[in-house]
Amino acid sequence: VHSLEILKYCKSGEIFTFRSSRCNMSEEQNKAPNVLVVYAHLEPKSFNGALKDTIVDTLKSQGSNVVISDLYAMNFNPVASRNDIKGDGLECPEGFKYQQEMGKAVAKGTVCDDVKAELVKVKDADLIIFQFPVWYSGFPAIMKGWLERVLLENFAFDEQHMYDSGFMKVSQLLFGIGGDISIVAWNLISPFRFVGFDIIKPQVFNAVEYITHQDRTAMLDRCKDRLIHMHTEESLRFVPTKDFNKDEGYVLPKSVVNGQTFGLTIGQHLDLPLPPQEESILIM
Amino acid sequence: VHSLEILKYCKSGEIFTFRSSRCNMSEEQNKAPNVLVVYAHLEPKSFNGALKDTIVDTLKSQGSNVVISDLYAMNFNPVASRNDIKGDGLECPEGFKYQQEMGKAVAKGTVCDDVKAELVKVKDADLIIFQFPVWYSGFPAIMKGWLERVLLENFAFDEQHMYDSGFMKVSQLLFGIGGDISIVAWNLISPFRFVGFDIIKPQVFNAVEYITHQDRTAMLDRCKDRLIHMHTEESLRFVPTKDFNKDEGYVLPKSVVNGQTFGLTIGQHLDLPLPPQEESILIM
Repeated sequence: VHSLEILKYCKSGEIFTFRSSRCNMSEEQNKAPNVLVVYAHLEPKSFNGALKDTIVDTLKSQGSNVVISDLYAMNFNPVASRNDIKGDGLECPEGFKYQQEMGKAVAKGTVCDDVKAELVKVKDADLIIFQFPVWYSGFPAIMKGWLERVLLENFAFDEQHMYDSGFMKVSQLLFGIGGDISIVAWNLISPFRFVGFDIIKPQVFNAVEYITHQDRTAMLDRCKDRLIHMHTEESLRFVPTKDFNKDEGYVLPKSVVNGQTFGLTIGQHLDLPLPPQEESILIM
Repeated sequence: VHSLEILKYCKSGEIFTFRSSRCNMSEEQNKAPNVLVVYAHLEPKSFNGALKDTIVDTLKSQGSNVVISDLYAMNFNPVASRNDIKGDGLECPEGFKYQQEMGKAVAKGTVCDDVKAELVKVKDADLIIFQFPVWYSGFPAIMKGWLERVLLENFAFDEQHMYDSGFMKVSQLLFGIGGDISIVAWNLISPFRFVGFDIIKPQVFNAVEYITHQDRTAMLDRCKDRLIHMHTEESLRFVPTKDFNKDEGYVLPKSVVNGQTFGLTIGQHLDLPLPPQEESILIM
């Protein structure tokens, strides 16, 4: 059975995503992690606002130091541009290439101030939580711009370090509606995977505009409970980059594909049938 | 065989997407369509810049009137906010809900000027082409914000009109890299599908930063050729909304699923195996 999901809710779904530095989480389980919450919602009185408060309060009560990047409150600029590099010194002034120039700017220390502030926050965090509503099957523009301007080459990844060897380490989760839930989730997860985060199961709250106060409270309580026990969770499984055959254009050898049951992730489905929708989140 | 796609190219892929009003395209085939190009790239000398010029020149030479929304050049604001509504009159001032308030603003004519200008352009167009690079598996933030601020309730859709009954009519295409191509494409297509566009096959140009001048020219020529013959193309197939069982939460009945071969779209995969990667674009 395949569901279109509740049609009228198609344009929004509430989500948050985790990043946790598993090294810290497992090796020093007694130390509460330093947490960065990257948060994108324009209304403090929304479900997202309540969720953000729950996250902050719960983690502080567990002893964590919590820093928030409240993108709307900060009036965060989401537009990647030439202005993101200080000074006139471009590597290739004819034909501006954002990704390449920013990678050099990271190495040279010429990244603009607002981006640099975010890089510092990411570096100081053991755990990052991305919290946002799903708008039109994706991140709100203000958060999409955060990814583009902050998860930079030579900071989050480089030519030798991406996917499981990316510079980031951690955990996350998500979801969206419209089409298959797990397909939308893959797109939201994949940027984080690319830069090396370990990722835990998405935490999804659907159709929060239409729920009762009681349901809302129950949802927030479930979230609280999950946060407290998060360090015991297993990460999602991905095929390690080394298993792909580089010489043949990063094709996955049959020996890896054969014998797999579904369970690697939707994005690496190995030509197997997709799981039934209700299991999608569990298996991702 | 499943491919991770060329790892080093994972962060960018060049794309453009079509929207064509098929009514106009088929009923008045002799009349060249009025075209809107929604374009998001920061560098005129890029492949995207050349592609945009090719599109504009080709369509003009076919007799079309062409309007461009060059989002970077316009310094388009991608951040959906309370400022998008003129005056103080909110429906629900306590707890601002963007989608709902903007839907009312469309009905009342209180949408802010820059958004209103885009609504007019969309309304006047028989064909819309979305052209953009794929950054981190999605639209660049500046274009994602265009979708959020322009494809509004009561303009592009309403409670009774969405997906195949949405107010938009037409054609499009796309792509992305990292994980399975067709999964990324589904996420880029689905916002347009939600508001009722008919959609044609994505036109994808991979890894354009690494190609020779000769390959680049050949790509642009292929694009030109496609534009000229576009009116003969069939739209992508989606399961009509009416086939979903509304009373059971929009579940697709077994009678619809059974006997289907793959070919509806990736987002509506009917629990069938995904197509091999090389066929994905063709089947979407």
